[in-house]
Order: sequence, then structure tokens, then C-alpha cells
Amino acid sequence: MTDSIFSKIIRGEIPAHRVYEDEGVIAIMDINPLAEGHCLVIPKEPAETMADLSDTAAAALGRVLPRIVRAVQKTTGATACNILQNNGSEAGQEVMHVHVHVIPKTGGGGLNKQWKPVGIEKDRIAEVGRLLARLL
Amino acid sequence: MTDSIFSKIIRGEIPAHRVYEDEGVIAIMDINPLAEGHCLVIPKEPAETMADLSDTAAAALGRVLPRIVRAVQKTTGATACNILQNNGSEAGQEVMHVHVHVIPKTGGGGLNKQWKPVGIEKDRIAEVGRLLARLL
Repeated sequence: MTDSIFSKIIRGEIPAHRVYEDEGVIAIMDINPLAEGHCLVIPKEPAETMADLSDTAAAALGRVLPRIVRAVQKTTGATACNILQNNGSEAGQEVMHVHVHVIPKTGGGGLNKQWKPVGIEKDRIAEVGRLLARLL
Repeated sequence: MTDSIFSKIIRGEIPAHRVYEDEGVIAIMDINPLAEGHCLVIPKEPAETMADLSDTAAAALGRVLPRIVRAVQKTTGATACNILQNNGSEAGQEVMHVHVHVIPKTGGGGLNKQWKPVGIEKDRIAEVGRLLARLL
């Protein structure tokens, strides 16, 4: 993968509002937020998408989410939030280094999404489930 | 928290299309999918939202995401996907037990979202960042 803006932030070559750091991850404020308190949790491992991330880096990423959510909610007063991670440009990924959005949901902002189930038949869901299970 | 449908699935009291299980998590097919291959990764620990989840359970949840994404993409042929986790009913959470949606993004389906930044001033972003950092 090419060097991304997040790799440069991790190395301290570009400034960012850093709110948390440990061995495996950093968290920074999103500078184009969907709501006050919107921040990004970024594994230090330079993987482009979740599919490329090591188990260890993914575990380190997951481990910090509860504390980040608690801090964001306490700071903003929000009682709800969405955690979103986009993989691939078709899915809305803009920086090609894994990052997790923590987005408080408030009256004045947050993630806007539409839930449009595609109506797949039960038998087909079961079949895809069997195919998936074979790979896991 | 009250017992949820996911607790019953984890205990095997309700059927589900189970595709993965380890000590900390299960993964099942979503029965009202946004796209073919849409599945849910669920920590066994009975926490209502990410804010309530233990570090250990959150790490176990994070650890399996890369392999689930790889399997979903290989099975469906999708090259992009969104990972979404909703906390609180205002954020779209329907079952009050932490669950992560893995949603392939394809021409015929996936997560529809609108990205509407709220235009918060840079100084305010920095200030919220400082408040957040103090709690982390």
C-alpha cells in the first residue's frame, strides 16, 4: 500500500488532534465531523482494509472502542453513537488505511443511513451461510 | 439488561445460521440482509452497547473481523464492505445486545448512507479533543 495521511499522522509528521494512543492504535478527532465528538480510531499497522489487518492489530483496535465510546458520550452528552468502518472506495473509504469512525448521534448531527433490506429468500441466506462457514 | 434474542441464540435456544464461533463471539447470518452475505458478529458477553462491553470482549470481537470480512468478500465476490455497529435506539440499534454488521457493498445492495459534515469550527474541534483526551 502507499503511504497514507494516517501513516504520517501516526509517525508525527503531520499534526492532528490526538486524543488517545497506545502500542497498537491512535485516536484523533475527525476534522470534517458529522457531529461534535466525531473521532477516528486507527491501527498503527499499515493495512488498507479490514481484510488486510492482522488479528493482533484488529484485537487492539476492538479493545479500545468501549473506552473511546464512553469518553465521547461523556464529553458530548450524546447517549447514542454509530461505529462505522468503510472498506473500499465503493463503500465510502477515502483514506486507504483502516480507520474506525466513532460518531455520536445527536439531534444536530450524526450518521444518516437508510436501511433497505433486499429481501433475499430464506433458503439462499442459509446457503450463503453454509458457504461462509466453510471458510471460517 | 434484559435477555435478548441474541443471548438466546448464543445459548442455542433459538435457531440461527451460525457461520463462526469461538470462546468470545459468534457470527450469524442477518435474516433481513441489506446485501447477500450480510452477517452479524456478536460478543457472547451480554452487554447492551459498546460502552458497556469489557476490554477483553471487545478485543475478541475486533480480532475476528478481518477473517469474517475476507470470508464474506470471497463468498459474495464483493470487493467493498461496511462494518457498522449501532449504539442506542436513536442510532438505529434494534436488539439491545452489542452486534456488529458486516455488510458487503454491491451494485444491488449494501449500506446506504449520507455523509453530511456539520461544519464545526477548528478551534472547537481542538477543544473537544482536549476534553476527550483527558478522559482517555
